[in-house]
Amino acid sequence: MSATGEAARLIGVGVGPGDPELVTLKALRALRDADVVAHFAKAGHASNARAIAVSHFKPGVTELALCYPVTTEIPKDAPAYCCKVGEFFDDCAMAVAAHLDARRSVAVICEGDPLFYGSYMHLHVRLAPRYRTEVIAGVTGMSGCWSAVGSPIAQGDDVFTVLPGTLPEDELVRRLADADAAVVMKVGRNLAKVRRALDRAGRLGRAVYVERGTMTGALAIRLADKADDCAPYFAVVLVPGWVRA
Amino acid sequence: MSATGEAARLIGVGVGPGDPELVTLKALRALRDADVVAHFAKAGHASNARAIAVSHFKPGVTELALCYPVTTEIPKDAPAYCCKVGEFFDDCAMAVAAHLDARRSVAVICEGDPLFYGSYMHLHVRLAPRYRTEVIAGVTGMSGCWSAVGSPIAQGDDVFTVLPGTLPEDELVRRLADADAAVVMKVGRNLAKVRRALDRAGRLGRAVYVERGTMTGALAIRLADKADDCAPYFAVVLVPGWVRA
Repeated sequence: MSATGEAARLIGVGVGPGDPELVTLKALRALRDADVVAHFAKAGHASNARAIAVSHFKPGVTELALCYPVTTEIPKDAPAYCCKVGEFFDDCAMAVAAHLDARRSVAVICEGDPLFYGSYMHLHVRLAPRYRTEVIAGVTGMSGCWSAVGSPIAQGDDVFTVLPGTLPEDELVRRLADADAAVVMKVGRNLAKVRRALDRAGRLGRAVYVERGTMTGALAIRLADKADDCAPYFAVVLVPGWVRA
Repeated sequence: MSATGEAARLIGVGVGPGDPELVTLKALRALRDADVVAHFAKAGHASNARAIAVSHFKPGVTELALCYPVTTEIPKDAPAYCCKVGEFFDDCAMAVAAHLDARRSVAVICEGDPLFYGSYMHLHVRLAPRYRTEVIAGVTGMSGCWSAVGSPIAQGDDVFTVLPGTLPEDELVRRLADADAAVVMKVGRNLAKVRRALDRAGRLGRAVYVERGTMTGALAIRLADKADDCAPYFAVVLVPGWVRA
């Protein structure tokens, strides 16, 4: 049994898009009950999930930092990248499993929602078949963005699509033209291409660029009004589908 | 000034997918601060949003029930439907505005996320230009569903699409085949068509049928294993895109 009398289990905890108040009561309870709090971060950087949730950690809780060995240094389609990342997640799963085997419950905190483009998924598929597991849904980064901007995104029978900015330009054009509403993620160094694709798809006029969503220093601007193509990795572009009816 | 000393404002409050613990701290604060709590419901039915959040209402708070005059009784593409629904939202906006004009702050509670397929959007577009407005993002119904099932939905460069089950079958087939991951909403009476479309798109084997998401009595089953085509309106079908890597 764990220190809190609970059987050991793995809990994927969504901590929301950035504002510490957008954490759910269920996530708070998980943080209160867990023996270990684990979080992913880029090597040498603070964990975003930790920054969001740290004010809710119980005093003296054991932390387990899981640091990516590489992110943008190796091209993502290179075999070396897949291999290195696969090994990294295997190692992370072993580190978490060691705690679970010692009957400690582990809360893996994740920005946004754990099963929606989250690193937690890599632990989940490795560990859920072997350990008691629970996933606590969180507010996604994109919900945080369109709420901060106050922009209704989709309604009624709208088709809504999430597109990675890493797609080829022609593919972005085709998919943007085919959706009523869209969110483009992973904008970063792809912003010039994303802008051209929106223009070609006839959607540039409606597109809103959002940086740092619900965090301190959030920025939202019509993409057509943004003078440069500089953007951090986590910037998103919203293309609202809904016109007032 | 309102009873709590706040200036009057409209607040769209996402209360999450069903589990009262999936309400955020920010939503709780809004419920504590608001003078009036408004909620949508089908005439003659209890409000789902109210059922989720009522345990967090402050004692004696003023409630404003906004009851849809019609839902499925008139076809949605009929002019009578649009007209009747438009008038209804105009009336709702006037009822909310009356409180705002009296300097009372109004929290409109919404299942899931207010700006993602939510009725709140109809109030937002009518009132946000005239009154101080805030939107509090919530956990979406679809996040609640894939978390309850423990099913990773999208990862990396996946394209993720939300489709209404009301689309024509050929259109569903085309879009399901074109997305890595998908969620089909508004399944209800469309389930037989949705099942055929998934089969034709080669995705039936991966599809998971979820009923009542994170509420009491939740049901999740591989769609291929579901023997009948009976489904409530709010049932969803998840088509996970991500295969372990």
